[in-house]
Amino acid sequence: MRASDQLRDIEIQRPYLGQSPGSVLYRSGDTAVLCTASVSDRVPDWMVGKGKGWVTAEYAMLPHSTGTRKSRDRGGKVDGRTTEIQRLIGRSLRAVVDLQALGERMVTVDCDVLQADGGTRTAAITGGYIAMVDAIRSALPGCLIGTPPLTDSVAAVSVGVVDGRVVLDLDYELDFAAAVDMNVVMTGSGRFVEIQGTGEEATFDDAELTELLRLARQGIEQLTARQQQILA
Amino acid sequence: MRASDQLRDIEIQRPYLGQSPGSVLYRSGDTAVLCTASVSDRVPDWMVGKGKGWVTAEYAMLPHSTGTRKSRDRGGKVDGRTTEIQRLIGRSLRAVVDLQALGERMVTVDCDVLQADGGTRTAAITGGYIAMVDAIRSALPGCLIGTPPLTDSVAAVSVGVVDGRVVLDLDYELDFAAAVDMNVVMTGSGRFVEIQGTGEEATFDDAELTELLRLARQGIEQLTARQQQILA
Amino acid sequence: MRASDQLRDIEIQRPYLGQSPGSVLYRSGDTAVLCTASVSDRVPDWMVGKGKGWVTAEYAMLPHSTGTRKSRDRGGKVDGRTTEIQRLIGRSLRAVVDLQALGERMVTVDCDVLQADGGTRTAAITGGYIAMVDAIRSALPGCLIGTPPLTDSVAAVSVGVVDGRVVLDLDYELDFAAAVDMNVVMTGSGRFVEIQGTGEEATFDDAELTELLRLARQGIEQLTARQQQILA
Amino acid sequence: MRASDQLRDIEIQRPYLGQSPGSVLYRSGDTAVLCTASVSDRVPDWMVGKGKGWVTAEYAMLPHSTGTRKSRDRGGKVDGRTTEIQRLIGRSLRAVVDLQALGERMVTVDCDVLQADGGTRTAAITGGYIAMVDAIRSALPGCLIGTPPLTDSVAAVSVGVVDGRVVLDLDYELDFAAAVDMNVVMTGSGRFVEIQGTGEEATFDDAELTELLRLARQGIEQLTARQQQILA
Amino acid sequence: MRASDQLRDIEIQRPYLGQSPGSVLYRSGDTAVLCTASVSDRVPDWMVGKGKGWVTAEYAMLPHSTGTRKSRDRGGKVDGRTTEIQRLIGRSLRAVVDLQALGERMVTVDCDVLQADGGTRTAAITGGYIAMVDAIRSALPGCLIGTPPLTDSVAAVSVGVVDGRVVLDLDYELDFAAAVDMNVVMTGSGRFVEIQGTGEEATFDDAELTELLRLARQGIEQLTARQQQILA
Amino acid sequence: MRASDQLRDIEIQRPYLGQSPGSVLYRSGDTAVLCTASVSDRVPDWMVGKGKGWVTAEYAMLPHSTGTRKSRDRGGKVDGRTTEIQRLIGRSLRAVVDLQALGERMVTVDCDVLQADGGTRTAAITGGYIAMVDAIRSALPGCLIGTPPLTDSVAAVSVGVVDGRVVLDLDYELDFAAAVDMNVVMTGSGRFVEIQGTGEEATFDDAELTELLRLARQGIEQLTARQQQILA
Repeated sequence: MRASDQLRDIEIQRPYLGQSPGSVLYRSGDTAVLCTASVSDRVPDWMVGKGKGWVTAEYAMLPHSTGTRKSRDRGGKVDGRTTEIQRLIGRSLRAVVDLQALGERMVTVDCDVLQADGGTRTAAITGGYIAMVDAIRSALPGCLIGTPPLTDSVAAVSVGVVDGRVVLDLDYELDFAAAVDMNVVMTGSGRFVEIQGTGEEATFDDAELTELLRLARQGIEQLTARQQQILA
Repeated sequence: MRASDQLRDIEIQRPYLGQSPGSVLYRSGDTAVLCTASVSDRVPDWMVGKGKGWVTAEYAMLPHSTGTRKSRDRGGKVDGRTTEIQRLIGRSLRAVVDLQALGERMVTVDCDVLQADGGTRTAAITGGYIAMVDAIRSALPGCLIGTPPLTDSVAAVSVGVVDGRVVLDLDYELDFAAAVDMNVVMTGSGRFVEIQGTGEEATFDDAELTELLRLARQGIEQLTARQQQILA
Repeated sequence: MRASDQLRDIEIQRPYLGQSPGSVLYRSGDTAVLCTASVSDRVPDWMVGKGKGWVTAEYAMLPHSTGTRKSRDRGGKVDGRTTEIQRLIGRSLRAVVDLQALGERMVTVDCDVLQADGGTRTAAITGGYIAMVDAIRSALPGCLIGTPPLTDSVAAVSVGVVDGRVVLDLDYELDFAAAVDMNVVMTGSGRFVEIQGTGEEATFDDAELTELLRLARQGIEQLTARQQQILA
Repeated sequence: MRASDQLRDIEIQRPYLGQSPGSVLYRSGDTAVLCTASVSDRVPDWMVGKGKGWVTAEYAMLPHSTGTRKSRDRGGKVDGRTTEIQRLIGRSLRAVVDLQALGERMVTVDCDVLQADGGTRTAAITGGYIAMVDAIRSALPGCLIGTPPLTDSVAAVSVGVVDGRVVLDLDYELDFAAAVDMNVVMTGSGRFVEIQGTGEEATFDDAELTELLRLARQGIEQLTARQQQILA
Repeated sequence: MRASDQLRDIEIQRPYLGQSPGSVLYRSGDTAVLCTASVSDRVPDWMVGKGKGWVTAEYAMLPHSTGTRKSRDRGGKVDGRTTEIQRLIGRSLRAVVDLQALGERMVTVDCDVLQADGGTRTAAITGGYIAMVDAIRSALPGCLIGTPPLTDSVAAVSVGVVDGRVVLDLDYELDFAAAVDMNVVMTGSGRFVEIQGTGEEATFDDAELTELLRLARQGIEQLTARQQQILA
Repeated sequence: MRASDQLRDIEIQRPYLGQSPGSVLYRSGDTAVLCTASVSDRVPDWMVGKGKGWVTAEYAMLPHSTGTRKSRDRGGKVDGRTTEIQRLIGRSLRAVVDLQALGERMVTVDCDVLQADGGTRTAAITGGYIAMVDAIRSALPGCLIGTPPLTDSVAAVSVGVVDGRVVLDLDYELDFAAAVDMNVVMTGSGRFVEIQGTGEEATFDDAELTELLRLARQGIEQLTARQQQILA
C-alpha cells in the first residue's frame, strides 16, 4: 500500500499518437491523460495586433474513462466542472510562458482523459506542460526552459484530508473519502501558481493547511524532476 | 485613502425589494449585490428520497453594472467565470448548513450584481449568507445559528499582491493591478472553507501566502461581526 | 382602496446604482424596475454607414422578483413573453427619437424587474424613457425634449376589464382577474404609439374599447407630468 | 387597382395536402398560407388532470416564400417576430373555443407560409380557424359553430395608415410604406379579440384610430361570411 | 395494385407558389415535396475568391406531413436523419453541375415535404433537380442540359427487399415492411451518383443486390424521361 | 508501396485503457481508433417494456487527431459528418445482434479517433465490433459468435476509384484523390450490411461498381479472419 506522502507511479509515453508536435500519454497510477499541443499563427480576435501570444487548454473525459459511462459534452453546454478545469490548466501553463516573447502565436493544449482514477486535472497540467514545450519548440526550435518564452516549468498535485489524515496525490477512492480537497500548482523554482482548497460540506484549520502545502511541495518537486529528465 | 489592511464600508439593506423571504442589498464600497433566497419543497431529482436537502446559488451581473455594458448570459451558454463563481457560492453556503437537518428542502440563493467594483463574489457569499438564513428561518421558524441546520456562519473576502504589497479587499482598480488574487472563505468560528489563490501570469511564495491569509482572516472576522449584528 | 381610475403611487430614484449614464429605479406600487441606459458608438452591423442611430431595449425579471422563483432565461432561448415585451419597449422608445438626428449611435436600455406586481412592461417604458434621456444627454449634452433627437416624451399604462368594470393600472391581482388586458403607449403630446388589447379566452365590444382608451389617456397624462418634473 | 377599403381576393383549398384532419391552403392575393391542424389526447404537462383542453399554434415561413431567401429557424432560437405571431394566432383561436367543453385535448394548428406578400399573420388566423374547426370536428363529430366547444368564429385583417390615408388589408408594398400598422382580430359576432396597433417611428391620433377600426370591422365581416360559406 | 417494378404516378406543378425562380411541387403517389431554388452571388466564406460556385440543399418535413404530427427542428439541433438527407440531396445535385462553369454563385435548393408517404428524399432529388435548373437558368439564361454548368440530369428512386421480393419505389407501407432499403441516384446518361443500401437488422446477398440495381436503373430511366419532357 | 488490392497493416491492443468491459485500440496503418463499449440495464425510453435491447454508437475525433487541429463538437450541434458516421456504426453493429435475445439491455460503443489517416469509420466498425463482443460477454458470459444474441461478425472497409483505378482501403491521401468513395460493411458470412458509394462531383458505371465490390469483399474476408483470431 502507498504511504500517505508517496506519489503514484508515473509513466510518460512521448511522442504518442496524434498528429500534433506535442503528444504525450501521461499516466499517474490508473489515471491516463492524452495531452496534445500545437501552435498556430492565429491568435484570438481580441489579441490581434498586440504583438503577444496566448496559451489555451481544453479538457475532456472520454465517455468510458470512468466506471459508469459519462455522456459527452455535446448539448451545447460544457458543464461547469469541465469549464473550471480547463481554465485552471490554461492559467497554470500561461504562468510559465512569457507571452510577449512567444510572439503572435496561439498554443492550444488538449487534455483528453482516457482513464480516470482521480487527479485528472493535475495530471493534465503536469503532462500538458510537456506537450506544450514540445509544441513551442516546434515553432521556436532550440528554445530552453528558463529562457523566454519558457520562463520556468510547472507541475501540479492534489492533497487532501482523509479520515483526519493529510494525504498526497488522491486517487478516486481517496478523493471520494476526502473532507478537504486541494489542488496545488507550482513552478519548478518552487513558487505557487494556484492553490485551490475546498471543503465540500467540511472545513479545515491552519495546522491542516500548513501540512497540506508541505506535502504538495514535496510531491511537486518529484514531478518537476521527472519533467526535466523527459525534456532533457 | 483606505489602508492596505482596511475593509471597504459595508452597507446592508434588509429586507430589500423582491418577494422572497430572504432579500438583502449588500454593498461593499461601490459594489452592490442583491441577494435573494427562498426555500422550496422540491429538491433536485438526484436527491429525491434521500431525506436531505440542498443549497444552490446563481450569480449574474446586470448588463449596466459595469462601466462598459456587458451582454446578458442568454446565448445558451453561461460563461466560464459565471459558472465558477456560482459553484463557489453554493459550496461556501453548504459548508455551514447541515443538509440532513435541513430535510428534503431546496434553498436557492440568487446573487445579482447591480453595481460592480471588484469583490462581487465575496460580497455575494457574505450577503447571500444573510439572505439564506432569512429564507431557512421562513421554513424553520426560530432556528439559531450554531444549531442544525445552521451550523455556523460564513463570509468571504479577497486579498492580493499589488505592486509587491499584500492588500485586503480589492476593488476593481486594485484587482486589475494585482499580480496575485486570492479569495478566502471562512466560517464564523475561524475555519477555512475555500482558498482560491491565483497568479495570472505571475506567481507567489510562502511568505506572501502567509501574509495574504493573515489579512484575510482579520477581514473576515470583521464581516462575521457585522453579520451577527444584522441577524441578531 | 384605490379607485378604478386612479394610478398606483409612483416613486422614482435617479440616479440609482449601476455605472451607466442613465440609471433609474422606477416604482409603481409594488412593482419596481431598474432602468439603465447607455450610448455606444457601435450601431448594429445592418446600420453601419447609414448615418443614423438605433435604440434597443432588453427586459428581464430577476428570479425572486415574483412570489414563486422564476428560472433565468439561460437555456439559449429567451421565452416568448420576454421577447414580445422587449420589442415593445424598443419600439415605444424609438417613436420619440429622431434616429437621423441621433447620428450613428446605439442606445441600449435595460429594464430589470426587481419586484413584480403587474404592469412591469409599462413601468419599463415609462422609467426607461427617463434613463434613455439621461443617456442621450450624456452623449449630446444639453439636448432638450421636443428638439431632435428627442422629439417627444413617451409613457405607458395598462387598462383592463375586470368583473365587467373598466379599470386603470392593473396590479397583479387585477391583471389575473381581468377578462381583457390592454397596454397603451402614448407620447407626451397625446398621440398613440401602441395599442395592444387582448382578450385571453374573452372578447370586448366598442363601448368597452372607448372607455379603456379614455382611462388610459388620463393615466398617461399624469405619468407624462411626472416625467417632465423629474427631467426638468 | 384595389380601393382602399377593398379586401384582396380570397381563395381557399380544403382539404389540401398533408395528413391531418384539418388542412387548408388559404390564399389572400399573393399571400398563401398552408394551415393544418390535428387533435391529440395529450395536453401539455401543466394542464394534465384539469379536465380542460388547449389550442396552440405554430407559424413559420418557408425559406423561399419571400423574394430574398430567408434562413430557417434552426439555430436553437426562434426569432422574436415568429414567437409573437404564433402566440397571437394561438390566443385568437382560443378566444372562440370553450376549453372546458373541449375536454383534455390538445389542438395544434400549423401555419406555414408558402408565399408571402403581407398579411401572413391575419391569413394564418383566418385560415387556421377553418383548419381548427375541421380538426375539432374529427374528434367531436357534428359539433356546430356557436355551440361549445366552438363558441364563435374568428377572423383577422390588417389596416394601416399609408401616405396619410387609412387603408384595408395591406400587402407587402403597402405594409412597407405604412406609418401605422394595425392587426385586428374579431369574432363572427363582431366582438374584438385583439387590437395590435403599432407606429414604428410614427404615431397616430384618435380620428385615425376610429377610421382604422371601422375599416377593419368591415373587412372582417366579409371574411366571416366566407368562412361560414366554406364550413357550411 | 401496383406491380413490383412499377413507379408510382408522378405529378409535377411548375411554377408553383413561392417567390423563387425555381419552384416545383413534385408529387409521387401520396408523397408531395415543394422544391424551390434560387441563386445568390454570395458563396460560402470558404469558397470566396476561388472562382467557382456551390450548390447546397435543405430538407424539412412540415409538422403535419405525416399521420402523427412531427415536431419542428427548432431545438437548435437538426436531427441526424434530416442532416443525412440534405447532404445526400446536395451531393446528388452537385454531381451534374460544373461548379467552375457556374462561377462564384451559390444555388440553394429547399425541399419541404408537404405530405409524406415514403420516398421523400428521392422525390426531393428528382424534383429539386428541376427547380435547380430553373434557378440556374434565371441567372444564366438559355443554358442547356448537357452543356456546362448543367453537365447532365439527375434523378433518384428507392428499391428494397420486402417479404423476400425485390420492389421498386417504396411507399411508407412497403418501406416499413422492407428488410433492405436502397436509394439509388443516377444521371440521365446512366451513371451512378450514389448507392446507399442499408439492412436495418437484416442483410442482403449478391443476387439481391444485382436485382435491386436493375430495378432502380429502370425506374430512373422513366424519371429522367419525365424531367426532360418538363424542362424541354 | 502498398498494392491496390492490399489492406494496410492492422494492429489491435485489447484490453486497452478505459474502464469499460470492452476496450480496444484498433490501428489500421496510421489510423488509430479507441473503441470502448459497455452494457447498461437502461434502454432508451421508447424501448422500455418491449423486452428487447439496443446497440448504439458514438463517434468523435480528438482535436489533434488530424494534422490541423479540429474543434470539438461542443457548440450544441454535432456536425453532419459525425452524425452520419455514428448512425452507420450503430446500424452495422445491430445487424449482427439479435436484439430480442439481448434482452432489455443497452450496449453503447464509443469510437474515439486518436489519429486519423483515412478510413476512420470502417476502422470504428471493425474495432467497435470487437469491443461490443467483449461488452456483451461481460453481461452474458460465454456467449458465442453465431449464437444469439451475437448472430454473426461484422467488418468494414473502404474502396474507391483513384486516377481511374479501383483501390482497396483508402488512406487520407488516396481518399483525397478519389473520384468515387465507397464504404462496404459485410458480415463474417459474406452478406452485405451497408453499401455507401458516393461520387462527389463525379460518377461511376456498372463495371467500376462490380470491381469495387469484389475488392471490398476480399478485404473484409481478411478483416473477419483477424477478428476471429482475436476473439477466439
